[in-house]
Amino acid sequence: MPELRKDPILGRWIIISTERAARPKDFKIQPPAAQKGTCPFCPGNESMTPPEILAYRSPDSRPNAPGWTLRVIPNKFPALRIEGNLDRSGLGVYDRMNGVGAHEVIIETPRHDLNLSQVSESAIRDVLWSYRERLVDLKKDPRLRYVLIFKNHGEAAGASLEHSHSQLIALPIIPQTVALELYGCKAFYDYHDRCIFCDILEQELEQGSRIIENQPATVAFAPYASRFPFEVWIMPKKHLCGYEDATALDLEDLARTFSAVLRRLEKVLGSHPYNLILHTSAIDARYPQTPDYYHWHFEIMPTLTRVAGFEWGTGFFINPVLPEEAARYLREASL
Amino acid sequence: MPELRKDPILGRWIIISTERAARPKDFKIQPPAAQKGTCPFCPGNESMTPPEILAYRSPDSRPNAPGWTLRVIPNKFPALRIEGNLDRSGLGVYDRMNGVGAHEVIIETPRHDLNLSQVSESAIRDVLWSYRERLVDLKKDPRLRYVLIFKNHGEAAGASLEHSHSQLIALPIIPQTVALELYGCKAFYDYHDRCIFCDILEQELEQGSRIIENQPATVAFAPYASRFPFEVWIMPKKHLCGYEDATALDLEDLARTFSAVLRRLEKVLGSHPYNLILHTSAIDARYPQTPDYYHWHFEIMPTLTRVAGFEWGTGFFINPVLPEEAARYLREASL
Repeated sequence: MPELRKDPILGRWIIISTERAARPKDFKIQPPAAQKGTCPFCPGNESMTPPEILAYRSPDSRPNAPGWTLRVIPNKFPALRIEGNLDRSGLGVYDRMNGVGAHEVIIETPRHDLNLSQVSESAIRDVLWSYRERLVDLKKDPRLRYVLIFKNHGEAAGASLEHSHSQLIALPIIPQTVALELYGCKAFYDYHDRCIFCDILEQELEQGSRIIENQPATVAFAPYASRFPFEVWIMPKKHLCGYEDATALDLEDLARTFSAVLRRLEKVLGSHPYNLILHTSAIDARYPQTPDYYHWHFEIMPTLTRVAGFEWGTGFFINPVLPEEAARYLREASL
Repeated sequence: MPELRKDPILGRWIIISTERAARPKDFKIQPPAAQKGTCPFCPGNESMTPPEILAYRSPDSRPNAPGWTLRVIPNKFPALRIEGNLDRSGLGVYDRMNGVGAHEVIIETPRHDLNLSQVSESAIRDVLWSYRERLVDLKKDPRLRYVLIFKNHGEAAGASLEHSHSQLIALPIIPQTVALELYGCKAFYDYHDRCIFCDILEQELEQGSRIIENQPATVAFAPYASRFPFEVWIMPKKHLCGYEDATALDLEDLARTFSAVLRRLEKVLGSHPYNLILHTSAIDARYPQTPDYYHWHFEIMPTLTRVAGFEWGTGFFINPVLPEEAARYLREASL
């Protein structure tokens, strides 16, 4: 069973998951992504993955067989296990609990040769909808506190398989940065009686210099304090607390923005690795579901600069590109 | 002038420093470390660097000429500038100030062919002493709030030059993780009237399973909630708040531990990239210098796993190696 341990100083939980690697020699500096042989995410190879949790497929096809356009499966090497109790306990100054949770993979397209910037808007909409479906389902589990949905694209961004996919990790704790974000929003709301993201959106739309895409229901912009060159945030204009509050129509508009942003990034930066993270509300009584103070959004972080453990160790970032410049490049890219 | 911007949600400051790179094409995915031609850190090439701030050199040698064993110089491409006022201001919901501070490089040895695990203990002691000298000097500047001393070893850990060196960044703000750490220690102290690091040390020494080195004045151990495989913390046994409180004798013992830890890591992991960060007290009235609640230490993070922006974005870590296992490997390595 994987184990969750809490740093007693920072209050940061980490997962000890010895499933995949164990001995020092297994760590020989960044092994190249193994993409030899058969791709387990391609149609026809469904038996190479655990049975699917969700699939969008043609009515005449059978589960775990070809005929799908999107598949959600449990991760074969999960960082967390869905079975079991949390068994929270203390060890002197330390705290631990069992690594209970879910670790799933969203196979975004049957096409091995396409990435998310190359598939159709409707395929992106399906991916966005599948995120919502899994969130709604997992939020019912009373052991869970947060559902983390993210995508590593490219080897340098941490992807170990080439075939386009996202991941979902459902956690019995709230990750530290998410907790800080929720806390920051709550503090702002307590003082101003307004959502800070709504304020940011208003200011960004008025000022315009960091806007990248402005669709009827969705905005993409370079955040004022971007940590990374060409960092992009995508946000619904309407105040929506949890991602599951988004309607099919909202996600249709979001898909349009998403597709345009990914294509703009590719146009400006060429083929590049990136991380994509969905920031949504928690399932924790300390952060009540009253939907007034939080506002879901996506953060896209291209992996361009050579930064490393130093940034993790300090929370300190040096960005060599002015966000206004990045936004201008992306806005002016012809699609 | 570089600019400091604050994320209004997380309260995280970042530096926009457009000194080095500007256009999208400058980012063509992780360019290989330029180590062609003459090394600016080698003896005889002193004129290739800005004039030295501090040097340990033979009495008959001249400044900025050969004859040194250690040199501290301003970074040629500084992320921050020492001249100027902070000019703090608000921009609607955002906050900014000028990027005032220092960015220095500590050239740890004249030998281009040696890394810190290969130099003598006395050379390491000199490096540790130079950190202290620079800290004492920079803490006098009333504009500064924190001095960050760190080392990126190896390309994958962010080093752009091969010749063994550390860096120092003096900041007019406290980096987020440091602030959280100070806050966590203060909260523990307010409740328990004890230093949390002292409690951790006591528990670690008693339990023993995570201890790597146990010298008269210094301990090295694998932290209970290690974020990274083979993460190591090095700490004085005596309660010392700021690094500048360490005496020459303390640093002599520290150098012995340091050298042993680096050699143990190399023995177990082979040649590997790593980040090293000095965690010391702040220069900020919000974290008063009463030395009761904070305890300086070093954190060493080998760059072994392929993690990326995702971890920066969430503060969420999955460690595939049990800290007790890592400690055992390191402890049992024969030097």
